[in-house]
Amino acid sequence: MSLAIVSPKRDVLPWVKILEKDAPDIPLQIYPNVDRPEEVKVAMVWQHPIGSLERFSNLELVCSMGAGVDHILGDPHIPENIPITRIVDPKLTFSMTNYVVMGVLNFHRQIERYQKDQNLKKWDMSNPEIPIRVGVLGVGELGGDVLDKLAFMGFEVIGYGNSPKENFRHLYYYGNQLEEFLQQVNVLICLLPLTPKTKGFLNQSLFEKCKKGTYLINVARGSHLVEKDLPVAIEKGYISGALLDVFCNEPLPKEHPFWENPKITITPHIASITNPGAAVPQVITNYYNLIEGKPLLNVINKSKGY
Amino acid sequence: MSLAIVSPKRDVLPWVKILEKDAPDIPLQIYPNVDRPEEVKVAMVWQHPIGSLERFSNLELVCSMGAGVDHILGDPHIPENIPITRIVDPKLTFSMTNYVVMGVLNFHRQIERYQKDQNLKKWDMSNPEIPIRVGVLGVGELGGDVLDKLAFMGFEVIGYGNSPKENFRHLYYYGNQLEEFLQQVNVLICLLPLTPKTKGFLNQSLFEKCKKGTYLINVARGSHLVEKDLPVAIEKGYISGALLDVFCNEPLPKEHPFWENPKITITPHIASITNPGAAVPQVITNYYNLIEGKPLLNVINKSKGY
Repeated sequence: MSLAIVSPKRDVLPWVKILEKDAPDIPLQIYPNVDRPEEVKVAMVWQHPIGSLERFSNLELVCSMGAGVDHILGDPHIPENIPITRIVDPKLTFSMTNYVVMGVLNFHRQIERYQKDQNLKKWDMSNPEIPIRVGVLGVGELGGDVLDKLAFMGFEVIGYGNSPKENFRHLYYYGNQLEEFLQQVNVLICLLPLTPKTKGFLNQSLFEKCKKGTYLINVARGSHLVEKDLPVAIEKGYISGALLDVFCNEPLPKEHPFWENPKITITPHIASITNPGAAVPQVITNYYNLIEGKPLLNVINKSKGY
Repeated sequence: MSLAIVSPKRDVLPWVKILEKDAPDIPLQIYPNVDRPEEVKVAMVWQHPIGSLERFSNLELVCSMGAGVDHILGDPHIPENIPITRIVDPKLTFSMTNYVVMGVLNFHRQIERYQKDQNLKKWDMSNPEIPIRVGVLGVGELGGDVLDKLAFMGFEVIGYGNSPKENFRHLYYYGNQLEEFLQQVNVLICLLPLTPKTKGFLNQSLFEKCKKGTYLINVARGSHLVEKDLPVAIEKGYISGALLDVFCNEPLPKEHPFWENPKITITPHIASITNPGAAVPQVITNYYNLIEGKPLLNVINKSKGY
C-alpha cells in the first residue's frame, strides 16, 4: 500500500521532506508520476484534477491538505463511501484570525483615509473611529475564533450559521434570521464552508439586506461571492468597501475589474496558508490509523459538506 | 468656589454641556474669561498656557482632561502641594489598544506590500507573514492592556518598564535590561508616560540596540522620540518602518520630513481621544470629593510623574 500526493498546483517538496523524515516507511507516489496506482490506499490532495483519483482502484481514504474540502467534494468520481479528512491546525486559525482582525481594525480606524491625508499633508482629527458591530458568517473552528478574539478586544459581535446551536458563547442567528442578523452589523465576515448551499451566498439579494455602508471581508472561498454583484452593491452604497483574499479564479486574472476598484483591497489568498509542519503529522496519523483500523482524525461530514 | 476650564486648544463645548447637565450647581469659569480667579478651587486643564493657573490663588486641585499629566507637571508655576488627577477611561484603553493592534497586524501581515502589489496587479503568495515578537515600553493601564490583547491573539509579547514588578502577568524587563529586552523583539510599541526620564527615550542609541528591521509604533507623546534620529535609524536598517500618532509639534508642520518618508505612517493624534462622556463624571466626582474631604480618584504620583 502507498500514499499518493495529488497537488499539481502547489510545491509539494516541503510536504515530501517531512513525510520522508517522519514516516520513512510510507511508500510515496507523487502525481503525475504514479506508476502503481493500484497500490494507493491513501491520497493526500489539494485541488487535484477532477477524476484524477479514479485510477486508484483500491483507494480507502482522501486527506485534504488544508482546512477546506470543497475541492474534494466537487469531484463526482470519488466513491461516496470513501472517508475524507481535513487539516485542523491552530496556526491556521491564528493566521486567519489575525488577518480578519487586521481587516476589521483597518475599517474601524480608517487607515486608508489617513494614508490619503498623509499624501496631502492633511491633519484632520475629526471622527477618528467608525463605530462597528461585527457579524461573522460561519461559526466553526475559524469563525468561532474570530468571534472570540474580537469580543475579547471589546467589540460587539454576532455569529450566523446554517443550523441552530445550543449555548453558543456569542449572540447567534441562523437559517431564516439572515436579514435580522445583517441589519445589526456593519462589518460582515465570510468564513462559511463552501457547500452547494453556500455557493454564491454573497450576492445582490444579500447585499440589499445589509445596512448601508457595510464593510465586507471574504476569506472563505472565491465562489461564496457572486463577483459581478459586488461592484454594484458598492456603487449603490450597501457595501462601503471590501477586503478579499479569495476569488473565483486564482490567481485573479489581470483583466479582472476588482484590481482597479478603489474600494476593494486584494490579497493573493494568503490569509491562512496550511503549514506542512502541522498538517503532515495529521496525514501520517490517519494513514496508520487506517491500517490499524483505528478511528480517523478530523473526518468531515459529507452530508453537511464540512 | 468654582471650577475653571483651561483648554484653549480644544473645543470645550461638549465638556461644558455635560457639566451643566450633570452638575448644574458647580459654577464654571472658562479660560480666558475667568473674571473671579480667586473663586477657582478646581482647574480642569488640557495643555494650558504655562503659568496661566497662577492667578487662581485659592487653587486646591488640578484635573487633567486626559490620561496624560505631562502638560501639567511641565508647568513649574503650579504649587508642589496641589494634587493632580488624571482620567482613567475604559473607552480610552479600548481605542488605544485597537489602534496599536492595527499597527502590529499591518506590519505582521504586510498590508502595504499587498497594496503595492494590487497597484501592479501582482499575485505573489510568498512569505505571507513576518514572524513577530512584540515589546511594549510602559506597562501601565494602556501598555498592560495592549500586552493582554496581543497575548490573547496568540502573539509573543514582552513588557519593559522603569521599575521591577512582582508577579506581572507577562514576561517583563526593567531598568538596565533594556538592551536584552530590545534584542528579543521586532515590534516596539511606546506607551511610556512622559517624564523627564522618558523624554527622548526613543533615540539613536536605543535604535542601535534594536534588532535590525524592528517596527516602531509611538502612541505616547511626540517628545518620547528624538525625531531627527528616526530617519537615520530607518536608513541604517535598525528600524524598518514606523506608525506615529504623536509628534513634537502638533499639527505636524507641513515642512516636516516625516510626511514624505515612505517608511513612516502618520495619523493625526487620533489613536485615543478622551471621551467627555466618560471623563466629565470623574472630574465632577473629584470636585465633590474635594469639598467633602473624601479621597480623590486617580491622583497621580508626582515623584513618578504619572
